[in-house]
Amino acid sequence: METMDGDRHRTAARPEVRALRPYRLSQPQFRAKLNQNESPYDWPEELKEEVLRRLRSSPWNRYPAVDAAPLRQALAEAMGVSSDMVAVTNGSNEAILALIQTYATGRGVTYPVPTYSMVYPLAVVGGANPVEVPLRPDFSLDAVALLSTAVELGARLVFLASPNNPTGNTFAREAILQVVEGFPGVVVVDEAYFSFVRASLLEEVHHRENLAVIRTFSKAFSLAGARVGWITARPQIIAEVSRALPPYNLDLFAQTAAMVALEHRHLLEERARVILQERDRVFTAMSQIDGVHPYPSEANFILFRTHLPARDVYSRLLERGVLVRDVSSYPMLEGCLRVTIGTPEENDLFLEALEESLR
Amino acid sequence: METMDGDRHRTAARPEVRALRPYRLSQPQFRAKLNQNESPYDWPEELKEEVLRRLRSSPWNRYPAVDAAPLRQALAEAMGVSSDMVAVTNGSNEAILALIQTYATGRGVTYPVPTYSMVYPLAVVGGANPVEVPLRPDFSLDAVALLSTAVELGARLVFLASPNNPTGNTFAREAILQVVEGFPGVVVVDEAYFSFVRASLLEEVHHRENLAVIRTFSKAFSLAGARVGWITARPQIIAEVSRALPPYNLDLFAQTAAMVALEHRHLLEERARVILQERDRVFTAMSQIDGVHPYPSEANFILFRTHLPARDVYSRLLERGVLVRDVSSYPMLEGCLRVTIGTPEENDLFLEALEESLR
Repeated sequence: METMDGDRHRTAARPEVRALRPYRLSQPQFRAKLNQNESPYDWPEELKEEVLRRLRSSPWNRYPAVDAAPLRQALAEAMGVSSDMVAVTNGSNEAILALIQTYATGRGVTYPVPTYSMVYPLAVVGGANPVEVPLRPDFSLDAVALLSTAVELGARLVFLASPNNPTGNTFAREAILQVVEGFPGVVVVDEAYFSFVRASLLEEVHHRENLAVIRTFSKAFSLAGARVGWITARPQIIAEVSRALPPYNLDLFAQTAAMVALEHRHLLEERARVILQERDRVFTAMSQIDGVHPYPSEANFILFRTHLPARDVYSRLLERGVLVRDVSSYPMLEGCLRVTIGTPEENDLFLEALEESLR
Repeated sequence: METMDGDRHRTAARPEVRALRPYRLSQPQFRAKLNQNESPYDWPEELKEEVLRRLRSSPWNRYPAVDAAPLRQALAEAMGVSSDMVAVTNGSNEAILALIQTYATGRGVTYPVPTYSMVYPLAVVGGANPVEVPLRPDFSLDAVALLSTAVELGARLVFLASPNNPTGNTFAREAILQVVEGFPGVVVVDEAYFSFVRASLLEEVHHRENLAVIRTFSKAFSLAGARVGWITARPQIIAEVSRALPPYNLDLFAQTAAMVALEHRHLLEERARVILQERDRVFTAMSQIDGVHPYPSEANFILFRTHLPARDVYSRLLERGVLVRDVSSYPMLEGCLRVTIGTPEENDLFLEALEESLR
């Protein structure tokens, strides 16, 4: 024990990992959970039963399909690409981490901020140097600033999310393509919220050697519980990133549920449309509340600023049973919160609580 | 396009990742699958139904429990440690990768070989420098050689598996503790096959600041399909490695199935005992076949050498419907194959096929 105590510093984690804040999420009592951009709709019973039926007849003692080959094939068909252009991952997080490990460990990763809060810790854990570039004040992408920083840094990876989280806006197609064309490394576009927008970079992967698009089943497909993400890119990128992904990274349930989701995606996409209608209704209603400034969104959540400190608004909403995300500590987002679009009833509860909170 | 073609080398993966061989596993036709050290026994129907019942009543649209808190608590109780001494992972692979990322990225990882084939690629993907030290000719651990290499290299992590795979032997407790005491960094002991042996380092984690023990539900618990591993260590190590693990790394099924496995672990452990009896029977029978040298095993598989090239024995066994693992390309293992202990019928089929193959 003395030896170990004396050498304690040598058993400590890497300083940059130790400096990361642990992921914590307060889960207080609530009536409406509008803090994680989940779909408010659980799967229909008949779809769940289909998954459970397949699970029942599968061997649990055996490793699941190597490379999740059937799921990759189904995803490829759904997107109209070949299956060597698809890799599946344990949520988007594993996709981001594996891309960093493949291209950027020991080098730089550049991304605009504010953005998805996991990018920074995943870059640090992946042994890369994260360098952040601010968005413009209207949250649009400054392609020139991003490019010049990335090139100056010698970055190997650029990450951006469109629609961006927590701002909710998509970036202009031309701006993203300017980055893809100008950056001499791999550009990762996170389209986690792809089902809520018309614009997508997906078809560009056919023509771009350095573009990888990430998507997830967690949002519009109502499947956050199964943790399935995927990467679409040219075969060379997929072959490379597949070396960084552990075999059997998706369990039997994740593979099966994602297959069933794809087979019934029209049903799930129908629900995404309901959420979009609600988003527009909630946005209009928020705009009419004094002291609230909602930002236009193309995703299933709305960023908003009020004239009160965000912490106070968060607490007042929670007192009324509504759990939202306080994002006021993000760059550029002082005073801001983010609300996920829920069911019409949950949204009504939120709007009422917001009005009362600001009175 | 021209720009990208001209800059192709700048979009290429890190050279050390590109040099990794992709994980491939041939899955030909077979009657007995004895190549991945899985349990031959699927879960009893009533246990599956218990898991499916809980899945049916859980929301799939929501993220699973943060930090898998209920599962960590249950594991802690089963092992008699506090829950801040447990982290859960997407199989053992994620445990190994996260420990490397926490302590060894940009530094060295030292481990004895031959060992688990994923250690090398995980070290490379994690941005660490893998340095291998041979076991003694009898596959025992040379603690002095391992220590001197690790210290000379300035390694931050030492990895070893006990029972070791694919050799099947456990390392002497004193040798492992000599490494733990002498190494000024973290020592990871992979006990994937813990249910098949009496010896374990687990209780040592209470007293050792630099010891982390990895276990998995994939083997004795018949749950390779759910991909659940876990790390047991002092709270400081767990707090550090938890920063390197993405939140929600275990999906709803993985968390639920592992909980049910713990609740019914006596049933599953009973089956492990049947496998042990079979292992001893198979070992004795193999010893009596001319030209076969089986190595003593404390796990659910047996390493063996024959007088024929391993590739030929592999093919002849496969012609007879028995799929084993050719491990002859591992260091020190020329001419060797590894057979997993299956059901009594599968083991009979293997023994018969082996005898015929060597005639």
